[in-house]
Amino acid sequence: MIKLMEGIPINSNKIAYLQQVKQQNMAAILKQIWKYEQVSRVELVDHTSLTSGTITNLTHELIELRVIREYASVSGNVGRKRVLLGFDPDYYRILGLDIGRSTFEITVTDLCGRILKTVGREIADQQGPDVYFREIEPVLAEIKEQIEQAGHQILGLGVGVPGPIDYGKGALLNPPNFPGWGGFELQQTLNERFQLLTLIEDDARTSALAERWYGIGRNVEDLVFITMGIGIGGGVISKGEIVRGTNGLCGQVGHMTIVMEGKVCDCGNRGCWEPIGSIPGILSRWSEGSTMDAFKAAVDRGEPEALKCLEDTLIYLETALINVFNLYDPELVVLGGRLFPYLAPSISSVQSRLQSRLYAFAKDRLRLEPSTFGASQSAVGATALLFRYLLNEPVKLLIER
Amino acid sequence: MIKLMEGIPINSNKIAYLQQVKQQNMAAILKQIWKYEQVSRVELVDHTSLTSGTITNLTHELIELRVIREYASVSGNVGRKRVLLGFDPDYYRILGLDIGRSTFEITVTDLCGRILKTVGREIADQQGPDVYFREIEPVLAEIKEQIEQAGHQILGLGVGVPGPIDYGKGALLNPPNFPGWGGFELQQTLNERFQLLTLIEDDARTSALAERWYGIGRNVEDLVFITMGIGIGGGVISKGEIVRGTNGLCGQVGHMTIVMEGKVCDCGNRGCWEPIGSIPGILSRWSEGSTMDAFKAAVDRGEPEALKCLEDTLIYLETALINVFNLYDPELVVLGGRLFPYLAPSISSVQSRLQSRLYAFAKDRLRLEPSTFGASQSAVGATALLFRYLLNEPVKLLIER
Repeated sequence: MIKLMEGIPINSNKIAYLQQVKQQNMAAILKQIWKYEQVSRVELVDHTSLTSGTITNLTHELIELRVIREYASVSGNVGRKRVLLGFDPDYYRILGLDIGRSTFEITVTDLCGRILKTVGREIADQQGPDVYFREIEPVLAEIKEQIEQAGHQILGLGVGVPGPIDYGKGALLNPPNFPGWGGFELQQTLNERFQLLTLIEDDARTSALAERWYGIGRNVEDLVFITMGIGIGGGVISKGEIVRGTNGLCGQVGHMTIVMEGKVCDCGNRGCWEPIGSIPGILSRWSEGSTMDAFKAAVDRGEPEALKCLEDTLIYLETALINVFNLYDPELVVLGGRLFPYLAPSISSVQSRLQSRLYAFAKDRLRLEPSTFGASQSAVGATALLFRYLLNEPVKLLIER
Repeated sequence: MIKLMEGIPINSNKIAYLQQVKQQNMAAILKQIWKYEQVSRVELVDHTSLTSGTITNLTHELIELRVIREYASVSGNVGRKRVLLGFDPDYYRILGLDIGRSTFEITVTDLCGRILKTVGREIADQQGPDVYFREIEPVLAEIKEQIEQAGHQILGLGVGVPGPIDYGKGALLNPPNFPGWGGFELQQTLNERFQLLTLIEDDARTSALAERWYGIGRNVEDLVFITMGIGIGGGVISKGEIVRGTNGLCGQVGHMTIVMEGKVCDCGNRGCWEPIGSIPGILSRWSEGSTMDAFKAAVDRGEPEALKCLEDTLIYLETALINVFNLYDPELVVLGGRLFPYLAPSISSVQSRLQSRLYAFAKDRLRLEPSTFGASQSAVGATALLFRYLLNEPVKLLIER
């Protein structure tokens, strides 16, 4: 809240107030650097409407903090060097952890959004937190130690998990097909064991954040990420920000009804997309159902039943996507997850069928894209939880902690 | 953008900058008054974190502008009078106009959100702007004159129309079943003819705004308004604000696919809710299809075919609502439109069937409510377009114009 209309207040809140102004100004600078990747101080004055004095002082402080650095650039016309500012990739590191129903993955990124390391492991199905922690703990501890020994500073640990999430407690609500995790206070447990600032989020939302902050969603205000694998989930970004909804359920695209009066789903609804359109859904509808690779081989051989099963899967996807477009009206829909590679060869035909079903004036604007980070999508997006925090509240994250 | 960290800038932007700070502070005060309806200056200091000096000066100015006024209140314990601030209902008026496919309605509200006048007329189906303007113009001109002769000031004219809308041009894009309106620049035409600040919005969104600003959505951040009549539309409010989406199509709930591989709809999609769940949809599925009153009489008499048709309608509604809850996760869904009164007796059974289909942890939070303003919903919400403008940009609306 700005209260300077009547002059700067001189009460005891003044310092807190000035910190808040600094926070907003620093955030404005960092967001412009993120947006343009490299930008001069003069351009920052134009883009932020901050004075050049403020820009000089705050960028100096951010350089000292090793969040940004100067880059020399040779300008095109006269060959004169310009100094540009960009994120400093050398000091800070962000850790990302994705916990899946039968995998985990750990990612390390720098402030330029580059992936420096990824470590993934399979875990037997249906395991609870104890089994996961036994596997994760030594890997994460070793990565943390390596980073710190190399003289880097870790901003924090972002975590993607199957939702829905109790954000107040930092715990998983009862996720379907993931026994033992309901109520487990993951955020606090990780925070205590690794002594890192820890943020958790639904894995479909971390996947959406990966696109928003590092991927093809960088310049997109409204996008929906749909992850298809064992389950089907959605992450909705509107006006540049994640939308969680009232109960953390916004974007539960896997649980929209596709088949009216269809079978009862684990979520309680009937005829959901997830139980028919996910990997288990495909394998249950295919009489030879064993693995997706076997399914793909059967499709490639032209076996009629497998082809029919694929076609049905695409019709379910098409129907779900029409609803996603007509309800959210996003600029971009990104498809990912372990099922996606098997459907990828058919996506251009899905796109043209979708176009024929959209409002005529909007159909040429339809954008349907594959995910940028493949199997690492959620872990990369988990690091974006911390990067977003840095860009929104740099003073709180870097100075006040 | 705040640029006071380094002291108040002394360049030529200073006045514009101070106006911007004033705008933000005045907006903060007005929003608190709206939220609490009546509030003391001391409470305003608490709620806004503005200094008491700023509160005193700005509320004084708002009283002079006749936007707010003082109300005396007897406090409970000691009987001492407190002075409270609330909106002043005596000076400003807002006009709302709803243009429907066979009706128009004009509403007058004051700044307390009270409806002072409504005038509605039927118009023959399928008429273009000329026929509408012939009817609307004398009514609106007379209302405007009456208001001005009584010494009131009109803030502006809000308009609800069938979407989708080209917001840049203030024109209707080709709305289905509304020939002659595609491309018509309604906003500019009204603005020129009546010399009033004119804002236009999709009628499902004005309906949602009516709840958000004056109705049961006042304290709700996330709500969806569904209007069912000749068409079916949705207005989505997320984090307190209307969401339009990339093409102005966010909330096109009538065009989600309910019947997979169903009939082609005017919008281009197949199996949409609107052509089966709207008034024309019901009358087309009922073999005696004539009017909704005849349908209601047949239901009341217990005619099996009419009962089956009603039950199917409710199943479509239930399926659509499950998708609305699982995709948007709103705190509240409000149902309105000309069809709603015919379905109202069945809504409690729809609500309990919905609860059985939602995620168990969220089902008790489900809220499904009838619209507050009935047939006047969109016209009342159209006035909220101006009220929202007043609360967001009071300096621009009241002083700079």
